[in-house]
Amino acid sequence: MTVNGNEKEQAGGPELTCPMPLTHHDQITLGHGSGGKLTAELIEHVFYPILGNPTLLRGDDAAIPPLRPALEEGDSLAVTTDAHIVRPLFFPGGDIGRLAICGTVNDLAMVGARPLWITASFILEEGFATADLERIVRSMRQAADESDVIVVAGDTKVAEHGQVDGVYISTTGVGRVPSGRQTSGSNARAGDAVLLSGTIGDHGIAVLAARGELAFNTEIVSDIAPLSGLVEAIYATGAEVHTLRDPTRGGVAVTLNEIARQSEVAVVLTEEQIPVREEVEGACELLGFDPLHLANEGKLVAFVPEESASTVLDAMRRNDYGRDACRIGRVEAEPGGRVLMETGIGGTRIVDMPAGELLPRIC
Amino acid sequence: MTVNGNEKEQAGGPELTCPMPLTHHDQITLGHGSGGKLTAELIEHVFYPILGNPTLLRGDDAAIPPLRPALEEGDSLAVTTDAHIVRPLFFPGGDIGRLAICGTVNDLAMVGARPLWITASFILEEGFATADLERIVRSMRQAADESDVIVVAGDTKVAEHGQVDGVYISTTGVGRVPSGRQTSGSNARAGDAVLLSGTIGDHGIAVLAARGELAFNTEIVSDIAPLSGLVEAIYATGAEVHTLRDPTRGGVAVTLNEIARQSEVAVVLTEEQIPVREEVEGACELLGFDPLHLANEGKLVAFVPEESASTVLDAMRRNDYGRDACRIGRVEAEPGGRVLMETGIGGTRIVDMPAGELLPRIC
Repeated sequence: MTVNGNEKEQAGGPELTCPMPLTHHDQITLGHGSGGKLTAELIEHVFYPILGNPTLLRGDDAAIPPLRPALEEGDSLAVTTDAHIVRPLFFPGGDIGRLAICGTVNDLAMVGARPLWITASFILEEGFATADLERIVRSMRQAADESDVIVVAGDTKVAEHGQVDGVYISTTGVGRVPSGRQTSGSNARAGDAVLLSGTIGDHGIAVLAARGELAFNTEIVSDIAPLSGLVEAIYATGAEVHTLRDPTRGGVAVTLNEIARQSEVAVVLTEEQIPVREEVEGACELLGFDPLHLANEGKLVAFVPEESASTVLDAMRRNDYGRDACRIGRVEAEPGGRVLMETGIGGTRIVDMPAGELLPRIC
Repeated sequence: MTVNGNEKEQAGGPELTCPMPLTHHDQITLGHGSGGKLTAELIEHVFYPILGNPTLLRGDDAAIPPLRPALEEGDSLAVTTDAHIVRPLFFPGGDIGRLAICGTVNDLAMVGARPLWITASFILEEGFATADLERIVRSMRQAADESDVIVVAGDTKVAEHGQVDGVYISTTGVGRVPSGRQTSGSNARAGDAVLLSGTIGDHGIAVLAARGELAFNTEIVSDIAPLSGLVEAIYATGAEVHTLRDPTRGGVAVTLNEIARQSEVAVVLTEEQIPVREEVEGACELLGFDPLHLANEGKLVAFVPEESASTVLDAMRRNDYGRDACRIGRVEAEPGGRVLMETGIGGTRIVDMPAGELLPRIC
């Protein structure tokens, strides 16, 4: 209960046994969100057994997770939040549970933070299948274990049938930024190499396919993954990591435009170097989408000084989630705030921030 | 950006001016949740100007708020989360914005934490009025200022018309528990006095009235309030504060049952000492509700050793949100896990955990 100690709390914690199956409630009712007996039942039969750890099980209004080792001078805390809505809830490569954990873990990692704790608040639709909720919560636990984080607090509300699309999950993450890391969307510098950790658009196309919005079959699966290990591998090279960001909603186009604006630099991409799976490329051509606008859930862009680029690329490629990492461009001083693309035929075009309406909508 | 420094960041921060009104978008569209230009517009025109502070304005994937003064040996961090759904969004005494901040501030305060930072994730309904969103966000800012917390990170998603009841807000709070505070639902002890900070059921009846579910008019307004100041006043007495909890969903009945179970003690109430406004009492009699089951959003119960009870009560009454504080009962060793009520006519009845379905549903 104090900030001192020697090691991080085990992500495992006690696995509680479920004293009684929830068979008499195979669907969520409004009462499950009321704060009374049914809410307690849902917590005891679904959330505690699957997500349980000593901090969560304490059951007070707020959790007091151990912070081990203690913060040292120069360490900081990072905090981030995301609301997760996606249709369908289950899709090739993942589900809303994995999305909720990975999205938050990755946002922490992108500022150089090592993820520590996650909170999860659920808004459930009356009538939602309890078995689907359990499947989603198990998926959260798996992603949390992979990311070495624990879910320390949660909340559940239930809205009337039709007022939620199944389940919405908001997750918040807290992480530790070790002393000396200065990674921000504002820190890209002229002369930086722009690295990308793998192929783009896989998540966007996988979700569109799962929604039946492609007129053809595809084998593409979402790339959803927690990237904190990849990020630690990048820092372990000793390189100055100027900027990290995961190109989720809005894709690489939005992410690079944000960075170009925050850092007041030009990002110059080389079209032929951007890795896109053949099936994703094909789907985009058929549907009129730009892969740069498609969402990713397991990719990052890294801006590092040119002299560190090869070392960092090598380190990324040795990580499971960076095997296809490559250099996709460079940073120049002018024109500030712009993203440019050098095309295969020797031309240059502007890669603009897409307007919301033109995107393939996947959430 | 480090954990060191001399003082907490000012809750105020820079008030940004709004360069261009959002008049061409007086309703929320799906594009506002896409992560593209419209999302950026919403952030720049609504969230930044109203909630702005240097940490939030940094605009990275995660916030790195200053922690001043640094954590000292023995200090802990507390974390809590809540999803907020309420109909109507605006009701006498408050709205969903005030609810979202106060609910989270209060959950932190109930474990003895001083609230520091809040994150807010919004799920908006397509077609929601931008003016209503602004009104809600202003209300959040006001409650945050009153609680001396800053909103450090946020997220917005938009769901199709009909799949959200206007807006759902999930808030997560991080606070500091000063060294030496050992307040938990598990720490109630036989011999403790049970104190209540004021009248019960005001929020529940105010929301029911605003929904038009009362057949009569009432002047009752919600009691929504941030209780961190009241909690600090209690600790300032030097009393051992065994347990604090705010009786929200499920009311005093659920809260006391939870504490009785966590601490394995009996809570014995004296019916005539429980403060209920005449209008709330009347509404309950007409509708068949028990005031003990009604939600409160600005009340707390405090368990302190009998010898400190008078001092703590005096301190509570000097605080704006504790003026009507009173002693409502005591803790006994047996029967463990039970809440009993001594009635005016000399009898004793069991106050049970209400089943979800029987509650007046207000969220």
